[in-house]
Amino acid sequence: MATVYLHDIPLPEARARLQKSLEDAGLWGILGVEDIPLNESAIGRVLAEPVWAEISSPHYHAAAMDGFAVCAAETTGAQPSTPVVLAVGTQAKYVDTGDPLPDGFDAVIPIENVEALDSAGRLTPAIRQPSSIRIRVAVVPWIHVRPLGEDIVATQLVLPAGQILRPVDLGAIAAAGHTTIRVARQPRVAILPTGTELVPIGSTLKRGDIIEYNSLVLAAQVRTMGGLPNRYPITPDDFDLICKRVSEAAREHDLILLNAGSSAGAEDFSARVVEKLGALLVHGVAVRPGHPVIIGMVRREPTDAGNASLMVPIIGVPGYPVSAALTTEIFVEPLLARWLGRAPAEPQTVTAVMTRKLVSPGGDDDYVRVVVGRVGERLLAAPLSRGAGVITSLVRADGLVVVPRGEQGMEAGKQVTVQLLRPASELERTIFAIGSHDIILDLMAQFLAEHRRRLASANVGSQAGLIALKRGEAHFAGSHLLDPQTGEFNLTYLPQYLPNVAVRVIALVGREQGLIVPRGNPKGIHGLDDLIRPDVRYVNRQRGAGTRVLLDYHLNLKGISTTAILGYNQEEYTHLGVAAAVASGRADCGLGIAAAAKALDLDFVPLFNERYDLIIPLEHARSPLLAPIFDVLDDPAFRNAVAALPGYDITPMGKLIAEVA
Amino acid sequence: MATVYLHDIPLPEARARLQKSLEDAGLWGILGVEDIPLNESAIGRVLAEPVWAEISSPHYHAAAMDGFAVCAAETTGAQPSTPVVLAVGTQAKYVDTGDPLPDGFDAVIPIENVEALDSAGRLTPAIRQPSSIRIRVAVVPWIHVRPLGEDIVATQLVLPAGQILRPVDLGAIAAAGHTTIRVARQPRVAILPTGTELVPIGSTLKRGDIIEYNSLVLAAQVRTMGGLPNRYPITPDDFDLICKRVSEAAREHDLILLNAGSSAGAEDFSARVVEKLGALLVHGVAVRPGHPVIIGMVRREPTDAGNASLMVPIIGVPGYPVSAALTTEIFVEPLLARWLGRAPAEPQTVTAVMTRKLVSPGGDDDYVRVVVGRVGERLLAAPLSRGAGVITSLVRADGLVVVPRGEQGMEAGKQVTVQLLRPASELERTIFAIGSHDIILDLMAQFLAEHRRRLASANVGSQAGLIALKRGEAHFAGSHLLDPQTGEFNLTYLPQYLPNVAVRVIALVGREQGLIVPRGNPKGIHGLDDLIRPDVRYVNRQRGAGTRVLLDYHLNLKGISTTAILGYNQEEYTHLGVAAAVASGRADCGLGIAAAAKALDLDFVPLFNERYDLIIPLEHARSPLLAPIFDVLDDPAFRNAVAALPGYDITPMGKLIAEVA
Repeated sequence: MATVYLHDIPLPEARARLQKSLEDAGLWGILGVEDIPLNESAIGRVLAEPVWAEISSPHYHAAAMDGFAVCAAETTGAQPSTPVVLAVGTQAKYVDTGDPLPDGFDAVIPIENVEALDSAGRLTPAIRQPSSIRIRVAVVPWIHVRPLGEDIVATQLVLPAGQILRPVDLGAIAAAGHTTIRVARQPRVAILPTGTELVPIGSTLKRGDIIEYNSLVLAAQVRTMGGLPNRYPITPDDFDLICKRVSEAAREHDLILLNAGSSAGAEDFSARVVEKLGALLVHGVAVRPGHPVIIGMVRREPTDAGNASLMVPIIGVPGYPVSAALTTEIFVEPLLARWLGRAPAEPQTVTAVMTRKLVSPGGDDDYVRVVVGRVGERLLAAPLSRGAGVITSLVRADGLVVVPRGEQGMEAGKQVTVQLLRPASELERTIFAIGSHDIILDLMAQFLAEHRRRLASANVGSQAGLIALKRGEAHFAGSHLLDPQTGEFNLTYLPQYLPNVAVRVIALVGREQGLIVPRGNPKGIHGLDDLIRPDVRYVNRQRGAGTRVLLDYHLNLKGISTTAILGYNQEEYTHLGVAAAVASGRADCGLGIAAAAKALDLDFVPLFNERYDLIIPLEHARSPLLAPIFDVLDDPAFRNAVAALPGYDITPMGKLIAEVA
Repeated sequence: MATVYLHDIPLPEARARLQKSLEDAGLWGILGVEDIPLNESAIGRVLAEPVWAEISSPHYHAAAMDGFAVCAAETTGAQPSTPVVLAVGTQAKYVDTGDPLPDGFDAVIPIENVEALDSAGRLTPAIRQPSSIRIRVAVVPWIHVRPLGEDIVATQLVLPAGQILRPVDLGAIAAAGHTTIRVARQPRVAILPTGTELVPIGSTLKRGDIIEYNSLVLAAQVRTMGGLPNRYPITPDDFDLICKRVSEAAREHDLILLNAGSSAGAEDFSARVVEKLGALLVHGVAVRPGHPVIIGMVRREPTDAGNASLMVPIIGVPGYPVSAALTTEIFVEPLLARWLGRAPAEPQTVTAVMTRKLVSPGGDDDYVRVVVGRVGERLLAAPLSRGAGVITSLVRADGLVVVPRGEQGMEAGKQVTVQLLRPASELERTIFAIGSHDIILDLMAQFLAEHRRRLASANVGSQAGLIALKRGEAHFAGSHLLDPQTGEFNLTYLPQYLPNVAVRVIALVGREQGLIVPRGNPKGIHGLDDLIRPDVRYVNRQRGAGTRVLLDYHLNLKGISTTAILGYNQEEYTHLGVAAAVASGRADCGLGIAAAAKALDLDFVPLFNERYDLIIPLEHARSPLLAPIFDVLDDPAFRNAVAALPGYDITPMGKLIAEVA
């Protein structure tokens, strides 16, 4: 058992404790400076000092055009009808753009505005070396001249300290006469993955092995924030080994991220390691995901350089990938900003309307990942998986909504502030799909990406999809609802679920439904009659899913009672979920589509044919946002890709089934 | 003379010609793919293919908490008053977070929710290896279990092609079972600076030398866009040498940027070089700054690898730094996007109100650099220098306003769309200063940067500053207007210029005004009486400048007529501008402040003392935006820095001179 028990404190308190310790250690400011050469690798570095101009730019009066330098006073009176002739050499001198204005001259006349004359006063093509020039317009002093200091005057402020260098900044620094740039030293960050269950990327996996990729994400985050990450190999759960690694890392790094082992379980050594090697400041922060965070300071070995701090901050980062990434964002980003002397990253925010009710633990700041998109007039935020282990929820997220400590969630329809993880312009490219799940939607997402659209699918089943569509929460719904009376799909449901909504119904695909069974079909399952066998465990789809409607319809035809089916109440939300349940042995079969069976290398017993439609409100069907969907449905590459999947019939694809006004 | 003469065509036409030629050459798509290791250097690379999941994550049912795996059915009926006891080994097994759920179990009870019992049924501290556990709450199946595929199901789309990789993406790719990433090959871009007048960064400068930094800015831009830049040394203006370099570059690059020589002057060889080595597609694009752009295709030597394209695109980039940077943004960014298979960069836009009238050449798309900030309720866009040579205008710019071809500018007050060059959140940190110029404002800008404020100063003189303040175009005005009747500064002007505006008047500094003269004062100038000498050329400040009011006041006292002063009508807008005019020999003296003389290593003849105030409307003086200004005025570091400059008296600094309701 761990000797320290996790006790969550509020985030501001945790930050304050870290800051206090860093201040005491003399580590609450820029870590150091270095002079780097002025070249393109300086991009993204942070100025440690302001840049003042050493020289002026231009550092002399320069011709701004190719032409003749003149004295403006000598052009007085020149007009189309009364030209003035100036002798080249004394009254006019040829200059190229950028040439210094010769002494005694104060203006430049562009070459296209002069007539070059030879010694006899005739027009000559030797425009650079005529005897004289004739001009027909008078000019004012300093015209077509870039005066000394036009861009930069020596001693001016060119860039303030803390500037994150951009390409044009480098040009201005060069123009101001500098050859090197004084920037903040990049903080060195050690990333130590620990855990006996961890295996490196690329290992052959056995049950219980976890691919260690947190150190990769953390290292990439640190690099993006301007630090120098250093990934250590995996250390197993061994107190002494972890102590040894941390002590080593403390010697040559400014910050240590100790990944996992930060909770209070039997093999969670991080807190004890920090206590042994220094001081434990925080164990537990009231933030979700991420709460078992550790903050401490560990001692540096006395063999180190004398002037370095004798303490090194260490952060025990939780093991779940979403927790790990968020902890790094919350604690490491502002720390690196401070050490680099730049402003902390400040996410852009937008206001959006929450599509679903959220339940939060009231004791924590709860970071909810959301997809954001515009449906009609409203910007909507749809929450993604809340699981701390679901890294794809961060990949798919457009932003974060923080439900603050003390609030137990929020109702659907509430206005929320979203901290964006993508540029706001991207949000206008989001197409919200809702309803029934089909693997083809993934394929469609890939094809839509080429049209600069992002397809965000929420898999809630056909009926729930139509309800969401009615509430204006999506651009279209995927549906395959069988009407038991008519044997028709979808159309008879529309008056009930979408009254007064004009919609277009487009066929996506015809497909087979059947029983997904383990490879080799060991239990010899061949039809619905087998579902009532006592040795057969079924896995069902959720209420309102088209597949469940289909099952119930056929069970009813056969007079089979649902209560006779073992596992009828065990629900999954997608075809792949059903397939995964079968693959894992949790169930012996489930109704679903062939592609899901194939995806997980399972067998498939085909039973029924059905049609899967896209139900699109007319207002969206005609919008530029959704136009690429129709291009994709016509795209032979997409059709071929679908046809190559087992169990699909692309004949109806793209066909207008109905337009309901 | 160049054989080709520049003929501007509209931007879309130029882009279309480039695209057509690239399509013909088979170069209008991704250039190639490469498989790179899955590590943090992959950040920013672009996926060449979609990533589909190879494996599920988790790839087994995993315990989501440290605790005991149980069979949910066996907990039925457990309540606080009627606990259930489960035998460890058969009915319950200890699991750590991440461990596989043992076969036959379907739920996990967290360790803190069980009572560990020894073989005699008594509570035991051996919580991992008790004989049995007692539970007082029944659990449902799959609680505290991460089912197989919770995050990713094998075959799912993880990321679409074209994705620019972020830290969390790398984690998801690893979780999906990949060890390498197939990304687009980075385009190789040769950057060839040409020009006999160019010298490398760090050279000792003589008149006419131009520091070559365009290649640095271009290389940094190319790198930021995802390309691999290669900077060549400077090539002098020599047709054959340039041809040789371009041919060399064509062998090993995907794109050549030939900098300068793109116009139609005597030493502008770029168009002829392109014609000789391939085909000239465009010479001149109707875009300002930047119009002498060249687009062409040059042949690759036949010695190259067989399957590569035989043509290489070349862009002749204009020489002025702003033109060069904008040309790269306009033509190279979309091309690299196409070659990398990513979406082209799309700047965020905001709507703002133009503070000043703009005049544009109607024939071009005119890219105007603007500073953007919020004054009161309005988001304002203030145009910066229009000069194509003024790189600091791009450094300072918050965004670009495009005045489209066919419009001859726009009126002040017009609503414009600004393409942002900084995050929108930064705009809310902009403090607009207007009015008289003082070098101290640069120092203040540096100190304000530490408070996360950006000071954008427009130098229009004291009177124009007060007028702008009245129009709501700035947060404060710097002013040092002498009232000839009272000898008082600023206050008597307020009723005239700011009627009905409540303002606070805060002293910034007392300062000396005097004559800025060349080092050693060669013409022996000692006072205003010398200004009427025929050998003395004066440089004046613009009408409405406090310094000009001061001059006129004292000239009037002495009965000196302004018409007697040579150069009285020669106007500069800043003290540094006056000093630069003297430094360059364009004038022999000008009235200004000592700091400006010192900045350019000139001499100074002190004449008058005056007070420079900040005039701040009360609504802004009380805003959080401006609060740091008062902190800076109190900051000993700032006061000392000002005191160290010649000619300043910091005694009045920060003093409240008046509050006018």
